[in-house]
Amino acid sequence: MSRWSASEPRERIRLRARIAGYFPITTWLPYYNRHLLGEDLIAAVIVTLMVIPQALAYAILAGLPAIAGLYASMLPLIAYTLFGTSRTLAVGPMAIVSLMTAAALSPLFVSGTVAYSQGAVTLALLSGLILALMGLLRLGFFANFLSHPVVSGLLTASGVLIAASQIAGLMGIGGAGFTLVDQLLHILRHLEKVHWPTLGLGLAALLFLLLMRRSAPALRRLGLAAGTATFVVRLGPVMAVAITTSLSWALDLPALGVAVVGEIPAHLPPLSLPSLNPALWRELLLPAFLISVVGFIESVSLAQMLAARRRERISPDQELIGLGSANLAAAFTSGMPVTGSLSRTVINFDAGARTPAAGALAALGVGLVILCLTPLIAYLPIATLAASIIVSAMTLVDLPALKRTWRYSQSDFAAMLITIVLTFLEGVEAGVMAGVGVSLALYLYRTSRPHTAVVGRLPGTEHFRNVRRHDAEIDAEIGLLRIDESLYFANARYLEDTVYGLIADRPAMRHLVLICSAVNLIDASALESLEAINARLADSQIALNLAEVKGPVMDRLKKSDFLDHLSGEVYLSTYSAWTELRHRLDDEARTGAESSDAAS
Amino acid sequence: MSRWSASEPRERIRLRARIAGYFPITTWLPYYNRHLLGEDLIAAVIVTLMVIPQALAYAILAGLPAIAGLYASMLPLIAYTLFGTSRTLAVGPMAIVSLMTAAALSPLFVSGTVAYSQGAVTLALLSGLILALMGLLRLGFFANFLSHPVVSGLLTASGVLIAASQIAGLMGIGGAGFTLVDQLLHILRHLEKVHWPTLGLGLAALLFLLLMRRSAPALRRLGLAAGTATFVVRLGPVMAVAITTSLSWALDLPALGVAVVGEIPAHLPPLSLPSLNPALWRELLLPAFLISVVGFIESVSLAQMLAARRRERISPDQELIGLGSANLAAAFTSGMPVTGSLSRTVINFDAGARTPAAGALAALGVGLVILCLTPLIAYLPIATLAASIIVSAMTLVDLPALKRTWRYSQSDFAAMLITIVLTFLEGVEAGVMAGVGVSLALYLYRTSRPHTAVVGRLPGTEHFRNVRRHDAEIDAEIGLLRIDESLYFANARYLEDTVYGLIADRPAMRHLVLICSAVNLIDASALESLEAINARLADSQIALNLAEVKGPVMDRLKKSDFLDHLSGEVYLSTYSAWTELRHRLDDEARTGAESSDAAS
Repeated sequence: MSRWSASEPRERIRLRARIAGYFPITTWLPYYNRHLLGEDLIAAVIVTLMVIPQALAYAILAGLPAIAGLYASMLPLIAYTLFGTSRTLAVGPMAIVSLMTAAALSPLFVSGTVAYSQGAVTLALLSGLILALMGLLRLGFFANFLSHPVVSGLLTASGVLIAASQIAGLMGIGGAGFTLVDQLLHILRHLEKVHWPTLGLGLAALLFLLLMRRSAPALRRLGLAAGTATFVVRLGPVMAVAITTSLSWALDLPALGVAVVGEIPAHLPPLSLPSLNPALWRELLLPAFLISVVGFIESVSLAQMLAARRRERISPDQELIGLGSANLAAAFTSGMPVTGSLSRTVINFDAGARTPAAGALAALGVGLVILCLTPLIAYLPIATLAASIIVSAMTLVDLPALKRTWRYSQSDFAAMLITIVLTFLEGVEAGVMAGVGVSLALYLYRTSRPHTAVVGRLPGTEHFRNVRRHDAEIDAEIGLLRIDESLYFANARYLEDTVYGLIADRPAMRHLVLICSAVNLIDASALESLEAINARLADSQIALNLAEVKGPVMDRLKKSDFLDHLSGEVYLSTYSAWTELRHRLDDEARTGAESSDAAS
Repeated sequence: MSRWSASEPRERIRLRARIAGYFPITTWLPYYNRHLLGEDLIAAVIVTLMVIPQALAYAILAGLPAIAGLYASMLPLIAYTLFGTSRTLAVGPMAIVSLMTAAALSPLFVSGTVAYSQGAVTLALLSGLILALMGLLRLGFFANFLSHPVVSGLLTASGVLIAASQIAGLMGIGGAGFTLVDQLLHILRHLEKVHWPTLGLGLAALLFLLLMRRSAPALRRLGLAAGTATFVVRLGPVMAVAITTSLSWALDLPALGVAVVGEIPAHLPPLSLPSLNPALWRELLLPAFLISVVGFIESVSLAQMLAARRRERISPDQELIGLGSANLAAAFTSGMPVTGSLSRTVINFDAGARTPAAGALAALGVGLVILCLTPLIAYLPIATLAASIIVSAMTLVDLPALKRTWRYSQSDFAAMLITIVLTFLEGVEAGVMAGVGVSLALYLYRTSRPHTAVVGRLPGTEHFRNVRRHDAEIDAEIGLLRIDESLYFANARYLEDTVYGLIADRPAMRHLVLICSAVNLIDASALESLEAINARLADSQIALNLAEVKGPVMDRLKKSDFLDHLSGEVYLSTYSAWTELRHRLDDEARTGAESSDAAS
């Protein structure tokens, strides 16, 4: 009994930490108070205003009825509030994910049909299951394989692609393809069908939005405070929606043939049942995986950046679970795949959201809008939504990043460029896969020809540097070769070539010291190469020595019999290798001289 | 004029070096003499004796008429003599390549038909083109991506698979599948069809071959010289062929139903035209690529090992061209895909082959055999060939390597095991691809969580080591963090986590020094992470310093504006960073103390 009572509290603490890991809400809800509620409420009102036009627009971008975007902005937010770790991430429909959703579903279903909508919730279900599973398996590190240049290239290319996809909507032509070429051809082919009233309205909305984005200095000159000016600027899309909807109603634009959102049933999200058809699941599995990964990376990068600013921490693995649960919620409430939204998250942060409760409050706001304002939304012109997508998509384009990356590293630039070109030609999925493949291949190619340096002693110090870059002492009998890479299968043979080349150049060499300060791993292939080098050097009367072998590498070498066969020694530092070998060679030379003296 | 005459010789020397690169034969043919011819001739005779049973057996293993193996042992050898760089590599049919040939062709054609033979020469053509193209593009380094454990696993699994595939032949049942399960099921299903005379003959041949392999000590006790004993042992397969063929002829075994090689036309290889059907090419492209890579890796490893023993050098890129031309020769002379043969190459080396001419001489020997000895070969029982394949396939199995690899590195072992299991279950192609994929994934996973160490000064030295492994001094205000891996996209985020964790643990820290002695690359993703770390540390009043940055890494950093924003300095060595920062902090403390003294 006493044994248990002693260990129980500790068990309970551990249990509580575990619960907090899986239910981050337990870390803030007990401390929630009126002050926090006030701050969250302000942020929620602003985000609700923002989310309405975005959610409608992204649903249309995804090929769905506009209302699906609002449905996807309710329960998913509440699910994320329960399981997410970021205090400011605003979850919901997002441009790139919507584009990928449309690209995945269009070959299978006709846009606007019930089957298409069921495809969207099935995609959300699969995406949710994949994210949640990756989170439970702690696979958050997978996201690291998408390098910054690839993500940056993907954003730039998607921005262009998304904007281009909306030009048709702006002209009143209707749906285009998912590659840049298809989209341009679609517009060129249907040029004669341009609906001029729609185009006029769309261009006006576009101009208004662009001007609003740049209006902050002018507003401040008019006497507005900086914060207020920023707030008014951000309300640009809401104002565009309000103005064009009013116009559309007043002038009865639908009668002129201007496409509008149309009747929306004024009720909360109906429950939906995703398809369980295994053939459809197989078809959607790869798109769902890529949507999950791209959405996750975007969300987690954003959440990490904002958390760092406030000295909070987020857990990538738990974020997977949070986003997964949000998608599962979307799957059963007639929604669409969701993830963290760049623009709304930044606004949520700036507006002072303090806890994930802000997201749940925004979900309630969206519910109120659906119940009360849908009659107004019916007159909202599609062209206004197209204009607002174009403006926000263009903010994804980051051309300076292209130049910066080119200057810093051509191979990173190559990965970026291939991502952009493939996204343009084949869509986002192909772009992501090509980008990852090229990044990995280039990294392996780079490490397969590692940098090595013959080093010498900086006179009067214990420091050894590259003889090509520094004025360092060389010893003809002792070769010091520093290897600047982990030794593994891709470069094991290259190491052999390098060593054999060096001993061919230095005929007087008696000892070779491999300096392993940069060797973090010697795998089984490299071990075989070292054994071959050791044997071949022994044939040539050269002893192989190692220096500065790292602890973990040494531990592993001790598990093989390599050290038993090693013709030389292992030294702690290059300096000790150099002094001891020099002494030994001097001793041998003296003994040799004495014995030849004795013989003479 | 004079300008040209002065530069002409140098041009000519460069041209000759280039010719020698592409036609290595020019490096030895001008110096060929009667002495070298004598040595090459002896080796050629021995290799010719060896090649007959092997070539017949491997052709049957590939599902081809036995004669195709002999055809593939003539012109390909002469092509390799012209373009290859190894002086001892014996080119021709080889067990694993034959197995892969059968696996590629069996789903498409019926074994033994003309279409099947045309498929084999088409596979040889594609393989030749792929190898030659890779050689011209200098892609020899590609071979490095097959790690030693994967190759070793592949050999072991193929050995078992090849031996198992011959058990059916030994029993007189006939062709089995290409996975271990298929083969075992095939034998079990056809057990009642076992042809007892064939099985008896096969088991006798198997026993004879196994005894011969172990007979060297006994032969030496009988008074034979060591060299002669080895030679006699190696002739085991030839003797088995001679004895069983004689028996088969004397007892008219074919009349009893014992399968024999049968009538062979006594003429030199007929010309063949590979198929140019694009659909077939597409079908065979991946198998041809894998056959090329596996064959190339086997050949080049072997050639390098033997060249190193004699201080010769081979060029992997030129080897690609040599093996490519051999396959092209096989494609147009009714052959099959070829590569370097392990067993014959070792014999060629031991028998004292001095130049690639030995291969061409062996090709002439095979020609003589075809012209004069085919009537005898007709009576050669298939079971004898099956027995000789089983015995030589078992030499590929290397079980100690499994244990050795397990002890040294579990992740290398995992790659090896997956290769073996996949080869058993799905065949050699699947095994190779899975092995490469798993090796790469494991390597990336390992480097994505790099080893880092907080280091301290070994008292009284300029040397800094891990404080967990050594009794080193720690300075509360100066954090020294050594990063034991190149910084790239896969571990950039992990670095941020590590640094933020460290500064959270050490509240007194004023300076953080990242020791980059093991950082061989900072890619664009890692640069962004460093910029983020720099900014965040600056917020916390901690300066970020770098030490021991390698030359190439520094060159690249200078191309970005990171160094302009860096809150600290870049130091040549950890020691100088430590002493200078210590001085500076002491100065600041003194000034602070003085000013507070003055104030008091």
